[in-house]
Amino acid sequence: MAESSLSLLTAIDALLEKKRYPALRDILISMNAVDLAALFNEVEDKALPFLFRLLPKELAAETFVEMDSDAQELLIRSFSDTELKDVVDELYVDDAVDLIEEMPANVVRRILRQADPDTRKVINELLKYPEDSAGSIMTTEFVTLRPKMTVEDAIKRIRRTGFDKETVNNCYITDDERHLLGAISLRTIILADEDALISDLMAHNVISANTLEDQETVAQTLAKYDLTALPVTDTENRLVGIVTIDDAMDVLQEEVTEDISKMAAVTPSDKPYLKTGTFEIWKNRVPWLLLLMVSATFTGMIITRFETALATHAVLTAFIPMLMDTGGNSGSQASVTVIRALSLGEVQFRELPRVIWKEFRVALLCGISLALVGFAKIMLVDKLMMGNQSITIAVTLIVCATLAVTVLVAKLVGCSLPILAKLVGFDPAVMASPFITTIVDALALLIYFRFTSVLFVSGL
Amino acid sequence: MAESSLSLLTAIDALLEKKRYPALRDILISMNAVDLAALFNEVEDKALPFLFRLLPKELAAETFVEMDSDAQELLIRSFSDTELKDVVDELYVDDAVDLIEEMPANVVRRILRQADPDTRKVINELLKYPEDSAGSIMTTEFVTLRPKMTVEDAIKRIRRTGFDKETVNNCYITDDERHLLGAISLRTIILADEDALISDLMAHNVISANTLEDQETVAQTLAKYDLTALPVTDTENRLVGIVTIDDAMDVLQEEVTEDISKMAAVTPSDKPYLKTGTFEIWKNRVPWLLLLMVSATFTGMIITRFETALATHAVLTAFIPMLMDTGGNSGSQASVTVIRALSLGEVQFRELPRVIWKEFRVALLCGISLALVGFAKIMLVDKLMMGNQSITIAVTLIVCATLAVTVLVAKLVGCSLPILAKLVGFDPAVMASPFITTIVDALALLIYFRFTSVLFVSGL
Repeated sequence: MAESSLSLLTAIDALLEKKRYPALRDILISMNAVDLAALFNEVEDKALPFLFRLLPKELAAETFVEMDSDAQELLIRSFSDTELKDVVDELYVDDAVDLIEEMPANVVRRILRQADPDTRKVINELLKYPEDSAGSIMTTEFVTLRPKMTVEDAIKRIRRTGFDKETVNNCYITDDERHLLGAISLRTIILADEDALISDLMAHNVISANTLEDQETVAQTLAKYDLTALPVTDTENRLVGIVTIDDAMDVLQEEVTEDISKMAAVTPSDKPYLKTGTFEIWKNRVPWLLLLMVSATFTGMIITRFETALATHAVLTAFIPMLMDTGGNSGSQASVTVIRALSLGEVQFRELPRVIWKEFRVALLCGISLALVGFAKIMLVDKLMMGNQSITIAVTLIVCATLAVTVLVAKLVGCSLPILAKLVGFDPAVMASPFITTIVDALALLIYFRFTSVLFVSGL
Repeated sequence: MAESSLSLLTAIDALLEKKRYPALRDILISMNAVDLAALFNEVEDKALPFLFRLLPKELAAETFVEMDSDAQELLIRSFSDTELKDVVDELYVDDAVDLIEEMPANVVRRILRQADPDTRKVINELLKYPEDSAGSIMTTEFVTLRPKMTVEDAIKRIRRTGFDKETVNNCYITDDERHLLGAISLRTIILADEDALISDLMAHNVISANTLEDQETVAQTLAKYDLTALPVTDTENRLVGIVTIDDAMDVLQEEVTEDISKMAAVTPSDKPYLKTGTFEIWKNRVPWLLLLMVSATFTGMIITRFETALATHAVLTAFIPMLMDTGGNSGSQASVTVIRALSLGEVQFRELPRVIWKEFRVALLCGISLALVGFAKIMLVDKLMMGNQSITIAVTLIVCATLAVTVLVAKLVGCSLPILAKLVGFDPAVMASPFITTIVDALALLIYFRFTSVLFVSGL
C-alpha cells in the first residue's frame, strides 16, 4: 500500500488542482476507511478538510476514527459545529473516548458540547476508568436480552436496537438489576427455533472481566478462549460494557511493541516509528543508555583490580569481549524466552523451581558444548593457524572453564530475574537483555579472574 | 488458572479413585473447552481416555481441538473407530488439517479412513498448501449467498446450511463460477428489510487474500482492517476459503514469539516453553552461541594487535566493557525498533534514507549526551572519588570520543542492517541484537584504538 499510496497522492493532487471533484469523490468512496485514513494522514493540511467533506457521512466517521490524532485535531478545528456533531453522533462511545484522550482541552470541550447528553454522560463515566484497564477500552453499546424472551422476541429486539451497537454478533442476557446471567451468539439465535427460549439456549458460565482488570489480561483472555467479545462487569457483577476483538488485537499489538521496546532498553512510545520526532526518540533511549553506561562502572572496577595480572598475561585481555558477549547472549536467550512465556501466561511464579531446573540442564549442555568447541577453536585457529604463541594450555583452560561457568550463571540469572521481577511487581521485560547483560558481564569477569588466579597461583 | 487447576487435578484424582463418576461428569461439563484441554494436558495418561469419554459429543470435540498433540495422539490411539469417527465428524476441516499435520503417518491414515469422502477430499486439498500460507490456515466451511437473493432467502439459506460452518457472521456472495463478488455481515442481513436484495446491501470492494499469501501478512490484514474473517481466493479470483480472526490471532502470537526468539538468538520453537525438552532447547540455542562465540574471534584479534598499547596504558582496558556494552545497547535500540516497525508494516525499504537520517540525528544527540555525562562521570567518580590516578584528561577524551562515534556507528548499523536483510530476503529479526552486537563490538574497539594512537602519537 505504501508504494501505491504515493501515486494515489499524486493523482489526487492533480485532480484537486484541476477541480475535478466528482472524479475525486468517485475515487475516495471506492476506498475503505482504513486506507482512506492512511491517505488522509499524508495529504497536505489545507487539502484535508476539503477531501474529508467529499465523503458520505458514515464513511467520513469511520475514516475519522482511523486517522492519527494530529490529522483529527486539524479536522475538528476546521469543522463547523454541525459538522462536528455529525461526526460525533456517528462515533461509537469507545472511539469517542479514545479521541478525547488524545485532544487538547479546548477541543475536548467542543466535542463534549456537540455530543448528546446521554452520550456525554457515558463518555464521562468511561473517562474515569484508569488507563490500560478493561473499563478504558470497553464499549457500552451492546445488545442485552432477557432470559424469558423467545428467539422471535430476541430477533425483534436486535432489529430494533442493533443499529447503533458496536456488535450484535454476541448478545448478553441480564436480569432487572443488570446482573450478567448468560451470553448467546447471533448465530445460535438465527439457527434456533423461533419459539425457543433464550434461557434454554444461552451459555451460563460466561467468561467475563472486571472493569479494573488490566487490558493486556483482557486481550489475552479473548485470544485464549477464541472469543470475539468479552463482557465486562463491575464489582457487583453488573454488566457495564464489552470489549470487542478488534480492540483486543490492537491492545495485544501495542503490548508486544512495548515489551520488545523494553527488552531493547527503549521507553515504549505509542506512535509509529516514522511519526516519532528525533527529540522524542532521544528522550526514550538516552536515559537507558546513561543508566547502563554508569552501571558498567563495576566491570571497569573489576578490570582495574586485575590490571597487574592482565599486564603480565596480556593474552588474557583478548578473550574478554568473547567471554562477555557469550555470557550476555546466553543470558538473553534464557531471559527473553522466560519473559515471553510469562506474557503468554505459560509460566507462573510457582513454576520458578521448574524453570531453574530446566535452565540448569540446558546451561550445562550449552556450557560444555561451548567449552569443548572453544578449546578446539583456540588451540587450532588462534594458536596453530594464527600462530599466537602466548596462548598456552593453561590460558585455554582458563578461558574454557570461564565459558562453561559463565554460561551456567548467565542462564540462571537470565531465567530467574524476570520471574522475580514480576513477583515484586516490576516489569519483567525491563529486566531483559540490557540489565542482564550488565550483570552477566561483571560476573563473567569475576569468574575469569578467579580462574586466572587459581590456575596461575597453583603454578600451572 | 494455574493455581486452581492444581487443586482441581487433586479433586479429580480423588473422585476418580472413589469412582464418583456422576460428580466428576458434573464438574467437567461445567467447564469450557479451553480450560478442559488445559486440564486434560495435565492428567495422567491412563485417566485421560476415561475422563474424555465422560464429555458430551460436542464438548468432547471442542476440547479435543484445544489439547496438545501428545495428548491428542494418546486419545486417538485409545479410540475405537466409532469414537474416532465421532470426533472427526465434529471437527472443522481447518482443525482436522492442523491435527493431521501433527500426527504420525499411521494415525493420519486412521483419521482419514474415518472421515467421510467429501471431507477427506477437502483435507487432502488443504494439505497441499505450503506451510505458513493463507491456504494452510483457512477453512472451507463458510456461507455463500447469491446476489439475486433477498434478505429472506439469505436467512433461510443461513438457517439451512449454517450449522456446520465455522462462522455465519460473515457471508460471501459468489457467482456460478464461485468468483467472489461481495461480502455481507449477518448483522447487515438481520437489520435489513426482508425484501431487500443482497446485491444492494453487500460490500463490493472486498479485501481478500490469495491462497499462497504468507499467513503473517494475512493476519496483519485482518488486524489492520478490523475484520473478523478474510476471504481467500485462488489465482482466478474464485473463493476457496476464509481465514477467521481466532486463527489470525494465533498466527500473530506465534509470529511475535518467533521474532522475539530470533532477536535473542534462539531458533523458534512452536511448543510452549515448559513443554519443550532440555535437549530441544539446547538444540535451538547452542548453534547461535557457537556462531557468535566464533565470530568474536575478530574482537580478540583486534585486541591482540593492540596488546602493546594496552600494556603501556593499562587503564585503557578498564573501559573496554563499558564501550562495548554501550555500543551494543545503542545498536539494539535502533535495530529492534526498526525490526518491529518492519513487521508492523510501518517501514518499507524505500524509506531507508528517512530511517538513516532519523537515526543519524538521534545518534548525534545520544552520542553527545553520553560523551558529556561520561566525561563528568569518569573525571569525578573514577578519578576523584575512586582515586584512580592513571586516568588522565587524554584517556578520558579518548574514551568519550570513542563513546560518541561508537553510538553513531552502532545506530546506523543497527537501523540499516534489518532493512537490508529484508531486501535480500533474510529475516530482519535474525539481524537483531546478537549479530549487531558482535559487529558493533569490533567497530567500537577499532574506533577506540584509532583514537588512542592518534592522541598518544600526537603526544598529548
